[in-house]
Formats: sequence, C-alpha cells, structure tokens
Amino acid sequence: MRLPKASDIARIVGGRLVGDGEFVPKGIAESDRAGAEELTVWDGRSPIAEEVGVVIGVDAPPSKYRALILVDDYRMALAKLLEHFAPPHPFRGVSPAAFVEEGAHVHPEAHIGPFAYVSRGAKVGRGAVIYPFAYVGPDAEIGEGTVLYPFAYVGWGVKVGKRCLIHPGAVIGAEGFGFVPTSEGWLRIPQVGRVVLGDGVRLGANSAVDRATFSETVVGEGSKIDNLVQIGHNVRVGEHTVIAALSGLAGGARIGSWVVFGGQVGVADHVEVGDRVMAAAGSGISGNIPPGKVVAGKIPARDRTKFNRSAALFYKLPEIYSKLLRIARSLERDEP
Amino acid sequence: MRLPKASDIARIVGGRLVGDGEFVPKGIAESDRAGAEELTVWDGRSPIAEEVGVVIGVDAPPSKYRALILVDDYRMALAKLLEHFAPPHPFRGVSPAAFVEEGAHVHPEAHIGPFAYVSRGAKVGRGAVIYPFAYVGPDAEIGEGTVLYPFAYVGWGVKVGKRCLIHPGAVIGAEGFGFVPTSEGWLRIPQVGRVVLGDGVRLGANSAVDRATFSETVVGEGSKIDNLVQIGHNVRVGEHTVIAALSGLAGGARIGSWVVFGGQVGVADHVEVGDRVMAAAGSGISGNIPPGKVVAGKIPARDRTKFNRSAALFYKLPEIYSKLLRIARSLERDEP
Amino acid sequence: MRLPKASDIARIVGGRLVGDGEFVPKGIAESDRAGAEELTVWDGRSPIAEEVGVVIGVDAPPSKYRALILVDDYRMALAKLLEHFAPPHPFRGVSPAAFVEEGAHVHPEAHIGPFAYVSRGAKVGRGAVIYPFAYVGPDAEIGEGTVLYPFAYVGWGVKVGKRCLIHPGAVIGAEGFGFVPTSEGWLRIPQVGRVVLGDGVRLGANSAVDRATFSETVVGEGSKIDNLVQIGHNVRVGEHTVIAALSGLAGGARIGSWVVFGGQVGVADHVEVGDRVMAAAGSGISGNIPPGKVVAGKIPARDRTKFNRSAALFYKLPEIYSKLLRIARSLERDEP
Repeated sequence: MRLPKASDIARIVGGRLVGDGEFVPKGIAESDRAGAEELTVWDGRSPIAEEVGVVIGVDAPPSKYRALILVDDYRMALAKLLEHFAPPHPFRGVSPAAFVEEGAHVHPEAHIGPFAYVSRGAKVGRGAVIYPFAYVGPDAEIGEGTVLYPFAYVGWGVKVGKRCLIHPGAVIGAEGFGFVPTSEGWLRIPQVGRVVLGDGVRLGANSAVDRATFSETVVGEGSKIDNLVQIGHNVRVGEHTVIAALSGLAGGARIGSWVVFGGQVGVADHVEVGDRVMAAAGSGISGNIPPGKVVAGKIPARDRTKFNRSAALFYKLPEIYSKLLRIARSLERDEP
Repeated sequence: MRLPKASDIARIVGGRLVGDGEFVPKGIAESDRAGAEELTVWDGRSPIAEEVGVVIGVDAPPSKYRALILVDDYRMALAKLLEHFAPPHPFRGVSPAAFVEEGAHVHPEAHIGPFAYVSRGAKVGRGAVIYPFAYVGPDAEIGEGTVLYPFAYVGWGVKVGKRCLIHPGAVIGAEGFGFVPTSEGWLRIPQVGRVVLGDGVRLGANSAVDRATFSETVVGEGSKIDNLVQIGHNVRVGEHTVIAALSGLAGGARIGSWVVFGGQVGVADHVEVGDRVMAAAGSGISGNIPPGKVVAGKIPARDRTKFNRSAALFYKLPEIYSKLLRIARSLERDEP
Repeated sequence: MRLPKASDIARIVGGRLVGDGEFVPKGIAESDRAGAEELTVWDGRSPIAEEVGVVIGVDAPPSKYRALILVDDYRMALAKLLEHFAPPHPFRGVSPAAFVEEGAHVHPEAHIGPFAYVSRGAKVGRGAVIYPFAYVGPDAEIGEGTVLYPFAYVGWGVKVGKRCLIHPGAVIGAEGFGFVPTSEGWLRIPQVGRVVLGDGVRLGANSAVDRATFSETVVGEGSKIDNLVQIGHNVRVGEHTVIAALSGLAGGARIGSWVVFGGQVGVADHVEVGDRVMAAAGSGISGNIPPGKVVAGKIPARDRTKFNRSAALFYKLPEIYSKLLRIARSLERDEP
C-alpha cells in the first residue's frame, strides 16, 4: 500500500492539515507502534509513540509529528483512507471460463470470474461481482453491486439485496434443520421457504443462513454478520444488527434492529430479542429480552450488571461456604 | 410455490377433507399470521388467526376456514406437503463440464453437475447427485441417492451411505487433530483412518467430520447433524442422534443412539454419552453420562433439574452473600 | 492400509524387535480392541487385549503377542508408522484444467489440480500442492511444500509459510469485522492489511483468519489451529500454539507461544494471553492472562483450581441457601 503525501491524505479524509503537506508516510501503524516515517490514526486517548510521521486525529497529540490532519471523527477518516487503498476486484466482465446456464439473467455490467457458476433463472444485477467458485442457484437474485466471494453458496430462490458482501464459504439457503420423530427415525421436513437478505448486509466467512420451512428467513438491511455464525430457519434479524463470530440463532428466533451480540452468543428457538439489546460474548439467551437491555451470562443470560455481580461472587463461593459452615458449627456449639 | 386445490392437498397429506375442496390457497403461513386466502398447519394449541383459507390439523380450529383437512400427525402432514413442493435438482446426468478422473466408477444413473470433481477409484452410486464444486476424493464411496451440495468435501477412502444429504461446505475426512509435543514443536501424527457415514445421515453446512488416526470415525444411520458442528477424529456417533449447530465432539468421544444435543454443546475427548441422553444448548460435557439422563450447564453439565436450581441461586448470590455477612456480624456482636 | 512384516515395521519406527519378525499384522487397532492378527500401539498403562499380533510400546505388555517392538516414545513411533501409510496426493504437475492467470509465478515443481485457481501476481513455491477448488488470490504467496486442500481460500496479498497444511474450507484473508456506527447504519472500515502464516502452520477445516485493518494478522511458526476456529483481524498468535475447534479470538487479541486452548474457548478483543497459558475447553477469557497460568470457566475464566472449587460449590448452592435460611430463621427466633 503506497500512501500519497500528507496534503493528499487530508483531502481524501476531508481533514484540516497542520504541518508539512509534502511529507509522504511509508505506511500505517497503530498509534503506540508508529514510527517517525509512518502514519497513524489516533483516538485522542490511547498511548501514542513519541515521534510519528503523520497523525490523523480529533486533536493535537503529545507526540512530535511532521503533519497533523484534524478530523471530526477519526474512525470515519480511517474508513475513507482505507477505502482509497482497497484493491479493485481482480477480474472484469464475464469470464469465458465461467459457467452461466441458459436462462440466467446477467446484467451486462456484472462481473463473473472463471469457475463461477450461475444457474438458470438466476438474476445477477448491475455491478455485481461473482468470484471464482461462487455458486448462484436456480432463480436466485443477486442485487446491484453485491459481491459473492469464492465458495459463497446462494441456494435456489434466495434473494440477496444490493451492495451486500458475502464472504468466502458463506452458505445462504441450505435446508433448515427440521425433523419429525418416528419410530424408525427422524423424518425430514423438506424446507421450501427462502432467504431474503436486505441491502448492505455483510455475511462473514463460513457463516450459514438456513432457508425457511416455508415463508422466509430474513436478515434486514445493513446488518453485519461475522464469520462462522449460524442463523437457523425462519429466523428474522432486524436492520443494522451486529452479530459477532461463532454465535448461533436457533430456528424461529426474532432479533430486533440495532442489536449487538458479542461472539459465541446462543439464542434459543422462537425467542424474541428486542431492538438495541446488547449481549456480551458467550451469552446464552433462553427467554425473551425486552428492547434496550444489556445482558450477559450463560446460565442463562440476565441483566449484565446483575450477572457481573453474581459472577464475582461465584469465585467467592469457597469463602462463602466455609464462612457458612463456621457459623453453623458455632451455633451448634451454643445449643444446649 | 403454487398450491393445488384443497381436495388435492388432502390427498397429498392423506387427510380427511371438511369444507370447500375446490378452494385454492395462495400460500402457506404460520397459524397466527395466516390470512383468509392462505393455508396453515395447526398444532391444535398455538394461536391461530380468526379467518384462514385452509387449515391442516388434528382438530377443528376456533377460526373460520374455507377448508379443513383432518390428519393424525400435523408434522407428518407438513412433511408430506412440503416434499411435494421441493424443486428437483437443477441438472441431470453427467455434465461434460464435470471432471471425472479415469478409474472413477460412476453409476449410469448418477447425476454430476458442471465443475464437480470425482477422483480415481471413487464410486458414485445410483441416483446420487453431485452438485457443482463438490469434491469426491480417491477411493471414496457415495451411496445410492445421496446428495453432495456445492463445496462438500469427501476425502480419500471416506464412505458415505445411501440417501445422505451433505450440505454446502461440509467437510468429511479432513485430518484429525493429533500431534506429539517435541522440543522443536508439535509433530503431526498423520491420520490414515477413514470416516463412515451410515445411511440417511444429514450433515449440515460447513460442518466437519475428521478422519480417524487409524480405524474409523463413524456417524450412525439416520443421525442428523446441524450446521457448523465439529466431529473429531475417532468419534463414534450412534444411530438417529441429533446434534444442533456449533456443537463440538472432541477426539474419541462416543455418543449413543437417539441422543439429542442443543446448540453449542461441547463434549470432551473420550467421554461416553449414553443412548437417549438429552443435553441442553450450551452444555459442557466433561465426563461420562449414563443413558437417558437429561443434562444442562457449562460448569460442567449435570442433571438438568439440578443445574436449573443452582442457576436460579446463582443470580441470588448477592443476596446470599449479604445475608451471610449480616449474620456473621451479628454473631460477632454477640461474642463477649 | 496393507502393513509389512514386523521386522520392517520395527525398521520404519526405529524400534527394537522381540519375537516373530516375519509376522504380518492385518491392521491397526486400539490397544483394548486389537485382535491376535492386529497391531497396536500401547502407552504402557491403558487396558490391552489378552492376545495381540504386534505391540509397539515402551515396555512389554501383559498380553500375549507374536512380536513386540520396543521404542522410546510410542507416539513418535505411531507418527512414523502412519506417515509411512499416508497416501500420496492424487495429482502431479499442473493440470491443464487448472486456471492459472497470466502473471502468476508457479514453481516448475509445484502441483496444481484441475479446477484450482491461481491469480496474477501470486507465487506458488516448490513442491506446494494446490488441490481442486483451492483459490489463491492476487499477489498471495504459498510457501514451499505447503498444501492447500479443496475450498481453501487465500486472499490477496496473504503470505502462507512453508510446509503449512490448509484444510478444506479454511479462509485466510477475508475482511476483518470493523465498522463505524453512523446514524444511517454501520460504515464499513475496509480492511487492507494482510495475513501472515509462519512455516509449519496447520489450519483446520472451515476455519477463518481475517486480514488486518492495516498491518498484519499473524499466526506464528508451528502453530496448530483446529477446525471451525475464528481468528479476528489484527490478532497475533505466537509459535507452537494449539487452539482446538470452535474457539474464537476477537480482533487484536495477542496470544503467546506454546499456548494450549481446548475447544470453544473465547478471547475478547485486545486481550493478551501469555506464553504457555493453558485454557480448558469452554473458557471465556475477558482479561489478560500472565504466562504459564492454567485457566478455566466462562464467567469469566480464572485459575483452573479456583474455578473447579467454585464450580463444585455451584452445584451445592441449593444446600448452601437452605442452610443459610435455616440459620437466619433460628437467629430471628432467638432475638427478643
């Protein structure tokens, strides 16, 4: 990644330049590790090296610097800067080594790499990018500007919105996990519903969103799903909800909008989680959570403050127990 | 999904029709959301909308309806109905764009899609369906009627039974996780055993079943494994066992038949779990569990009733602790 | 797997033969299940069948045997023996059905299977093996002797060391999970850093290692990562560290060398875990852990002995609580 001179960087991030606009930083580094030749983005609080080349921040740092770029929001500035350096997708147009079935509808401005597969009846929108080894099933729909990375699976009839990022190995529209017990074994309930991802959804590597039994599994606009997350059949996730890695939502769970889950959270089937709920990593949610609550804990999840208080006392259990036994013994001694 | 008229639906599910057999429902919906034009499957207890087009159920609902289809088992009826609407696989025969190595044995009635790969010595049975981007390794065996979805990996020598469903990204027969510590690092123990999946096994998206060090890793007939499940080397899973998403079975664990695990369950290496054990989501099983037990909890899993009692008191720890301190102080005051 | 006669096995594993060197065992089995025709590797302690064909061990077993092969380290002997029987990779050279972009640098002694994809600017080292359906992104580097199994994803600019094993479905260099909240939704922070895997790294099936925001995500030399593990952006894992299945390391976590994690461990973002730390399966690590500590528990992880003591008392909470109430009542009765 070759950076331009400080004055150009200021223009890219929309910041105000102080100092040497001609200085060209050699790379980007975290604030406490950046050197005199490097650029860093400083949050205004974290430790920062004594001498840094260029600092992007909301305020002047205690460090020496060659150039300072003052911005209102340092994370937004970082996003703009990195956007500038993200490499383009490595192919354009439809590769002759792609396999597009007859009856597929591919927009003339879509990009399909070698060894990509698009089934009949599928629609691929303008500017969409289908990487090698991505699979688009029959009658699936890939919205404008959406990117399917390698090994992305989009099953039959699945609808992926516009500007979605579907990371490698993400599986959208595999069969939900539904069976009827019989005396000879579990009878599969075929899953013939579909999956709908809203615009701007991000699905992480090796995640899975199951198709509904009938009707739809939904992930709302702007929601961001991390790697290795399981979203069961008939789940509904609202808008702008963030779910970190290795979390699992069982069949029929309903998650609100602007919800934030840490990693390894589990939600039981048919549970409702309200808007703006936050769940700490490892939470096990077995009952409904009203909007705005902050929860934690696996036994099961409760109000986070309450959980933390009990968790602290959990490690005092030996002390509690021995104190209790001492009291019990002393009272027995006092008995006549 | 276009539905036929009510009398045809009654025939498909094997139910008794009451009401208007000519009525054609416009879609399927959950009982509390179904409209006057839709069909629903009612369990006899759940809330149901005031007016529904067609009801399939064990009993007459409190709703208005145009047609009622009485059945003995509403889930079985649902399975039959949906089976009727599941779309066929999107290709037939062996695609010229598939790569079948010389020395592979493909049944003339098997189906192999474009960009599928079958190694030499592999056997693909009658009616098996190998999707684009599925990989069948050397000497692997794919039973009659089994479906390998895209990105399914079947390693060398692995045996997959008949009528199995291997969902996208499932990995069968990657190397088990076995190493010998040496002063220079971990020496890999090559894993040269195999994996055997019985007939009717279902393996979820992005799950993994490791090959045995030597001998076999086994998943028994009819067992149903959800997405993102890890099954370590030399594990043996019995028949008709159900394991929900994000669960992990460490090397050498032995799981009985008709066992049911919720999501995110962990089982330690070489532990034995008896037949018909049920483990709640999030259970951490670190010791053997006798047949028929119901367990829960991560610290570690114990009898579920016992766990629930302790979990309730966990959240009373602050009250317990302050009560204890109060008693201790009052006793100290009483001391001379 | 066809085994040679006992004297040849003794030579392969570097052991001392006692008994019938001409005897040819029919297979390998675990010590308690091995039969009179089979070979077993015995650890010197575990139960062993009464009559075994060939025993490899550090000592003479209580069993009858046809041949005994005495070795210093039975696990090392097992590794050598199995190494001997691991089948070769099923293709050699560069397949005409592979897709190697112009401007890729493939060593003449590298092996690339049909339906493998190598982007421009990528380097594939001597003796590297790229299986069908593996994806090597632009400017990525695959070291000498490294194996990419099917559905391995190596993103642009990622560097994979020498002699690494990248198992099926492993994703290296997908975008890290970084967003800025805005009133309209989460603004993605493009991730333009890279991933560096040291020599001898093992990455399990369907695992994911995210690229850094800028700079690098690193997994050090000789580290062994199991299946379905998530390693977030900017994480640094030291050398010879072992992480079992379904564990997740959040962004910026720093894990030392010779660390051992059980399955389903979670580490919070930016936490530092010292060298040689051991964490039991299911541990939730939310704060720094000094070198050499052994931890356990999800609420959060603490010293293992301490955790186990509290966990035992957790299941005594009902007893503790009723004892406490009894004392409280008896004291109240005593009050005037």
